[in-house]
Amino acid sequence: MMFASDNTSPAHPSIMAAVAAANDGFAMPYGADPWMDTVRAEIRRQFEAPEAAVYLVATGTAANALALACLCPPWAAVYCHRNAHVEEDECGAPEFYTGGAKLVLIDGDHARMSPAGLSRAIGFTARAGVHNVQKGMVTLTNSTENGAVYTPAQVAELAALAHAQSLPVHMDGARFANALVAAGCTPAEMTWRAGVDVLSFGGTKNGCLGVEAVVIFDPAKAWEFELRRKRGGHLFSKHRYLSAQMAAYLRDGLWLTLARQANAAARRLSQGLAVTPGATLVHPTEANAVFAAWPRAGHHRAQGAGARYYLWPGNQTLEGPVEDPVAARLVCSWCTADADVDGFLAAVRG
Amino acid sequence: MMFASDNTSPAHPSIMAAVAAANDGFAMPYGADPWMDTVRAEIRRQFEAPEAAVYLVATGTAANALALACLCPPWAAVYCHRNAHVEEDECGAPEFYTGGAKLVLIDGDHARMSPAGLSRAIGFTARAGVHNVQKGMVTLTNSTENGAVYTPAQVAELAALAHAQSLPVHMDGARFANALVAAGCTPAEMTWRAGVDVLSFGGTKNGCLGVEAVVIFDPAKAWEFELRRKRGGHLFSKHRYLSAQMAAYLRDGLWLTLARQANAAARRLSQGLAVTPGATLVHPTEANAVFAAWPRAGHHRAQGAGARYYLWPGNQTLEGPVEDPVAARLVCSWCTADADVDGFLAAVRG
Amino acid sequence: MMFASDNTSPAHPSIMAAVAAANDGFAMPYGADPWMDTVRAEIRRQFEAPEAAVYLVATGTAANALALACLCPPWAAVYCHRNAHVEEDECGAPEFYTGGAKLVLIDGDHARMSPAGLSRAIGFTARAGVHNVQKGMVTLTNSTENGAVYTPAQVAELAALAHAQSLPVHMDGARFANALVAAGCTPAEMTWRAGVDVLSFGGTKNGCLGVEAVVIFDPAKAWEFELRRKRGGHLFSKHRYLSAQMAAYLRDGLWLTLARQANAAARRLSQGLAVTPGATLVHPTEANAVFAAWPRAGHHRAQGAGARYYLWPGNQTLEGPVEDPVAARLVCSWCTADADVDGFLAAVRG
Amino acid sequence: MMFASDNTSPAHPSIMAAVAAANDGFAMPYGADPWMDTVRAEIRRQFEAPEAAVYLVATGTAANALALACLCPPWAAVYCHRNAHVEEDECGAPEFYTGGAKLVLIDGDHARMSPAGLSRAIGFTARAGVHNVQKGMVTLTNSTENGAVYTPAQVAELAALAHAQSLPVHMDGARFANALVAAGCTPAEMTWRAGVDVLSFGGTKNGCLGVEAVVIFDPAKAWEFELRRKRGGHLFSKHRYLSAQMAAYLRDGLWLTLARQANAAARRLSQGLAVTPGATLVHPTEANAVFAAWPRAGHHRAQGAGARYYLWPGNQTLEGPVEDPVAARLVCSWCTADADVDGFLAAVRG
Repeated sequence: MMFASDNTSPAHPSIMAAVAAANDGFAMPYGADPWMDTVRAEIRRQFEAPEAAVYLVATGTAANALALACLCPPWAAVYCHRNAHVEEDECGAPEFYTGGAKLVLIDGDHARMSPAGLSRAIGFTARAGVHNVQKGMVTLTNSTENGAVYTPAQVAELAALAHAQSLPVHMDGARFANALVAAGCTPAEMTWRAGVDVLSFGGTKNGCLGVEAVVIFDPAKAWEFELRRKRGGHLFSKHRYLSAQMAAYLRDGLWLTLARQANAAARRLSQGLAVTPGATLVHPTEANAVFAAWPRAGHHRAQGAGARYYLWPGNQTLEGPVEDPVAARLVCSWCTADADVDGFLAAVRG
Repeated sequence: MMFASDNTSPAHPSIMAAVAAANDGFAMPYGADPWMDTVRAEIRRQFEAPEAAVYLVATGTAANALALACLCPPWAAVYCHRNAHVEEDECGAPEFYTGGAKLVLIDGDHARMSPAGLSRAIGFTARAGVHNVQKGMVTLTNSTENGAVYTPAQVAELAALAHAQSLPVHMDGARFANALVAAGCTPAEMTWRAGVDVLSFGGTKNGCLGVEAVVIFDPAKAWEFELRRKRGGHLFSKHRYLSAQMAAYLRDGLWLTLARQANAAARRLSQGLAVTPGATLVHPTEANAVFAAWPRAGHHRAQGAGARYYLWPGNQTLEGPVEDPVAARLVCSWCTADADVDGFLAAVRG
Repeated sequence: MMFASDNTSPAHPSIMAAVAAANDGFAMPYGADPWMDTVRAEIRRQFEAPEAAVYLVATGTAANALALACLCPPWAAVYCHRNAHVEEDECGAPEFYTGGAKLVLIDGDHARMSPAGLSRAIGFTARAGVHNVQKGMVTLTNSTENGAVYTPAQVAELAALAHAQSLPVHMDGARFANALVAAGCTPAEMTWRAGVDVLSFGGTKNGCLGVEAVVIFDPAKAWEFELRRKRGGHLFSKHRYLSAQMAAYLRDGLWLTLARQANAAARRLSQGLAVTPGATLVHPTEANAVFAAWPRAGHHRAQGAGARYYLWPGNQTLEGPVEDPVAARLVCSWCTADADVDGFLAAVRG
Repeated sequence: MMFASDNTSPAHPSIMAAVAAANDGFAMPYGADPWMDTVRAEIRRQFEAPEAAVYLVATGTAANALALACLCPPWAAVYCHRNAHVEEDECGAPEFYTGGAKLVLIDGDHARMSPAGLSRAIGFTARAGVHNVQKGMVTLTNSTENGAVYTPAQVAELAALAHAQSLPVHMDGARFANALVAAGCTPAEMTWRAGVDVLSFGGTKNGCLGVEAVVIFDPAKAWEFELRRKRGGHLFSKHRYLSAQMAAYLRDGLWLTLARQANAAARRLSQGLAVTPGATLVHPTEANAVFAAWPRAGHHRAQGAGARYYLWPGNQTLEGPVEDPVAARLVCSWCTADADVDGFLAAVRG
């Protein structure tokens, strides 16, 4: 009954097998391995983006921070949602990599940036010439930190606001696969066709050991990215182990299959909570994370039964009247078992 | 006949097996996995350093740059050898992570910093008060970029010069195992007993997939390291795959066994070249890298036979009179086969 | 009728005379001039802080950014008001000098940070260990960007919240003199006795040509400040011209006299607007800036009569129904003439 | 008998008078003052560069560091002489402003970069693709830190090497006026016609209170410069006092007149030392600084007579055999009196 995060899940056996298979003899370092050729070709094919530059790093924070640094000068604003991972969970990595850009926080339901909020923030920036930070770029997370999904149309609306000011758009896709299968569209529709310039394409949370691709649809920034990656210490010498993971992840739609499994588990969990007395959903369950509140007594029972998850927001505690609801985040992954979902629900209900 | 770099070698089967074994069910992220407990305990035990803080990252550049940033303020000098990896092969990662510290370059044979050179450079720094960069820290590489090994006494001599000025000492041990078995001393003798404050302890080049430990002998800097690691994007969520590698590497002296194999292969190669007509050693072969020169005709034959290696220094070419010697670097790894060494020597000799 | 900013005003004749008098023969550079000795002694005396370290720079942004960089590590939060100069008017200088610290924005009336807001923000920071930016420091502006004044008790309340978490407190005193004479307290009461650790002590806006002192009440950070100042290009070789300004500013209470003149002019203006039909004060007038709204017709008349000031907030325009009020900022300085205030009021009233 | 530095000299009376004259009533801030219009027009006229962007800052370190940051990305090399001010006297300001670029040190007599050294260094950079810092830019100082002067032809030779690699060229002209009158050429010949892209045009050392212009011959970088200047805290609100200095400096060739006076004083001093028994010139005296060695006894006598200057290099002391020569730097300025030169020579000779 592990719902703490999708990053607690193991790697999918096919991905582990690919890593083991890549461990065969010598291979040229730093991305000159043959598995990387496959990765590049597959991402270009599956995203219908034959010119895209494709790079691998091992963490989502690295993918995001390097992407932002390529798109935003130090004296400009990065528009993001108030609860974005880049704002709340990266210990200032965006500021470090950009050389001090300013994250400007936008509101919006379910951690989706509202177009009105973005428009207002852009309009407010750099009204005083050189005295303020300048308009920089937009970054949005799909699926969001609250488990919601931007549709391609929603992405396009935000991207249009950005592009009207010549601002580039980044998508933090640590859970891109979960968003994509939820939206039921193609990778191209969710990204460059909707106006995304650079994508952090997550593998780690969805069945890999640790690999994220950065997909730069306009390759003009590719060389700068390579230099920033090296300088950030994120260029792997034994790069083949990143490549092999990603190649297996992309093969035969495995990435989509795994995301469907995670989303289905979350849906089962969400639907179960929806009919649980005293429980309410805090956010709609659109991808693989469930945000819900239920009585403290149910928390005590669930945790007593071994369930692992975080109270959300984090300033709550389990002390207090047993019937008072407490909110929590429950994240499912590709390997969340129906039995664990059902066992959890049973424990909550008591 | 692969001698391009030890980073072209695969992972040792025991290490790959440990990674696969760690892929069993859920595990808490970010270093809260049980394998990391083993790693920490083993490094403390094997280094006789019960208080040491131990962290894992995936690349040598990350290990070095994060260590330097913890030890050196932005306005100070990092004393290193002119050919150090931090100077020549990290695309400015030390400057990036420190916020702009200045690498001050010291000469010395075989990429070993000379005590006189270090002393002179320290003496020259900050003579004009606030106008110059200040005295910062010393970093040395063992084994060196030219395949030489500092003995504990040599480390201690340099560290004493640093400590006399209250400057901390870092050792870039990307090939620490190779240096250690060559010197025939204990890990403690080579590090903290000789005055090393922080060690980058390499695993990648010596049989791992991609993992380096940073060992901070005085844990006062531990929390700062953790923040810098996270902010640099180097904290792994699925950290268990780093931990498992390092735990296997440390088990039953595997790391020492692998280094002995690599060094033995280099010795065989070096001895073979020493008796090859027209060939000369450019640096003594003390660890797992051979620097030698031999006639161009031998290069043509070796490369025709499939040997891979880099001309060293890099500004040489194979065009020219066939009997003129050209210098090269040949790196052996834990899996360099005697047959490859012998085949290479035969090709060189023609 | 110049109300655009106090920085449009000339230097006071005594200060200009002091600069001219300092231009007598040779003087040692970089702060080793005798006028600096006077400055240091006077600030220590007038602030009752015999240990304080005192440095001069030429701009308020330099004073603030250098102070922040000394007090806040790159991975931490700077708590400031949402409208603080460091947030809105320095083009990211705090981020640049700190190496990427994050400004966390606090609400509060009249640009005074609310204790509840500060407390909430501190409580929200670093709840997730290494994943978020850490608690860093507090900076408050006195007088505020909206012309309000913190009393010593209000400063002390905020500082106590900071110090309870071991966070240092900076005061941006670009208009410190205006705040001080408004509050009717001593420099010590407004600063270190209330918990301020470092003060940016403004001279430029209040009758100098361009000089700000940074007063570091605990001199442990003094040497770091000197290095950061030099490295930022803010150490003047012909430092005597900074020193001479500040020495004259401090002499015989000139700095207080000038602030009283500016505040009196603002009071006259504010009181005049308060009794002007259709005009309302947007913020209370506590120092030398007036924030008021009045009908567009009055704006047209005032500007036609040559009045200079900014609409505030800046997204307003003068087009529209003539009777609709539009808000503006009117800043008085030491040399604002009563005749100009009265002329302005007459024009507004028509 | 002040020869410590030209920055110990006072401002020329005309410049001080211009500052006082500018103190007349209100003036718009941040460079929107009428004196700045004059400065811009005059520099464009005198440099025959009608498109040049012109900005003012108050220190030479700010001018240099901001210029370098506009010309060199963080991952690239700044080629400079080993003794350049940017390397030795700015406490790492170039590294700070560029975000960590690497200064690559070139040798050459009299602090003039040798073309062969520059060519070799450029050739050595970035030979290993992404692993090294990249080729960045060239910066040279005229007149040099050793009092030598680059002729336009020498500048052009270095600039051609840079431009052949598409690298921009910066000239640190803290003593540009001294170099120019020594070379006997026009400002255009010494700068953009010889291939200089950006000039730090010094005023401070040559009769101003504290002002340096940055002249950007290709204005494509102008807006970036403005943002970096603001962000660095180097945009003055009461900018008129910078403008007024520079306008007076440029008027009627004052800047050239003052430089001729300084150079003439240095020549008188140099010629006097050349015929002083036991004294030798260490560098040729081409501008306003004299580098010479003479017996310790002469030093004791000169210093006893009140002469101020620095031993150069700084690791020498006056203890030792009285007849042993000790080297020193003697800097003349626009106001160095013949009587002081002659008095100094008399003291040295005893």
